[in-house]
Amino acid sequence: MELKSIGIIHSPYKNKSDAPRQGRLRDELFEIEIFPEFTEGLCDVEGATHLIIMFWCDRGKREVLTVLPPGAESHHGVFATRSPDRPNPIALDIVDLVKRENNRIWVRKMDALDGSPLLDIKPYLGDLDSFPEAKLEWFSNDKHD
Amino acid sequence: MELKSIGIIHSPYKNKSDAPRQGRLRDELFEIEIFPEFTEGLCDVEGATHLIIMFWCDRGKREVLTVLPPGAESHHGVFATRSPDRPNPIALDIVDLVKRENNRIWVRKMDALDGSPLLDIKPYLGDLDSFPEAKLEWFSNDKHD
Repeated sequence: MELKSIGIIHSPYKNKSDAPRQGRLRDELFEIEIFPEFTEGLCDVEGATHLIIMFWCDRGKREVLTVLPPGAESHHGVFATRSPDRPNPIALDIVDLVKRENNRIWVRKMDALDGSPLLDIKPYLGDLDSFPEAKLEWFSNDKHD
Repeated sequence: MELKSIGIIHSPYKNKSDAPRQGRLRDELFEIEIFPEFTEGLCDVEGATHLIIMFWCDRGKREVLTVLPPGAESHHGVFATRSPDRPNPIALDIVDLVKRENNRIWVRKMDALDGSPLLDIKPYLGDLDSFPEAKLEWFSNDKHD
């Protein structure tokens, strides 16, 4: 299972220390460049208000199985967190689409680091993907910033 | 960027023709087996009501850039659809967690085919991941079943 990079994420966050805990907490504009050979796959993407962006956390640690998330009181299994450290460091950001021009899109509410390889773009559908009642016990119980 | 299989999805859907258009439309129980060397990463997963399951669509076509989705009136770019055919065929299902026992979890609302390689599990957080207002123009306009 070999992934191809389909583009590059241009981000204001150059290092881990620049990035917010959650992309939703900030409002910076990100430019995502899709390699020209994949532009045809973007047809009708401009009609989406929200997109799911998948990218490769090339700075994630793949051998880590438990982490202490920011603001958490104890360690948790990586599969109970959104940490970039995990066996397959595929990050998922749900973003607001601002505009598309040919093979480039501009979005807000990401937390990717600059230069992260783009893996996939999917439309987010309010009717199918929203579960406001969804809860995670440790996250509700721990104090977090 | 080489992915590792971290487990296997046991599904009642053996072939593409068995699977529903959307896992949310049916209620079958799925067993997901995580390979024992990754069990530690499941710590506290049982406290989630909803999980994001990422798996590899090993029967997806990677060279396809436009598709005619079920019920759609015309072709759309794969990045404006949730088709399993795409350059990196990583599927994403948001599922209801039923229970966990050691290295196995049982979930509902999936659409994976039997034997699909498991790539990642992340908690879905109602406060961060719900956008009921999100729209996709072609999906709203086309007749679909």
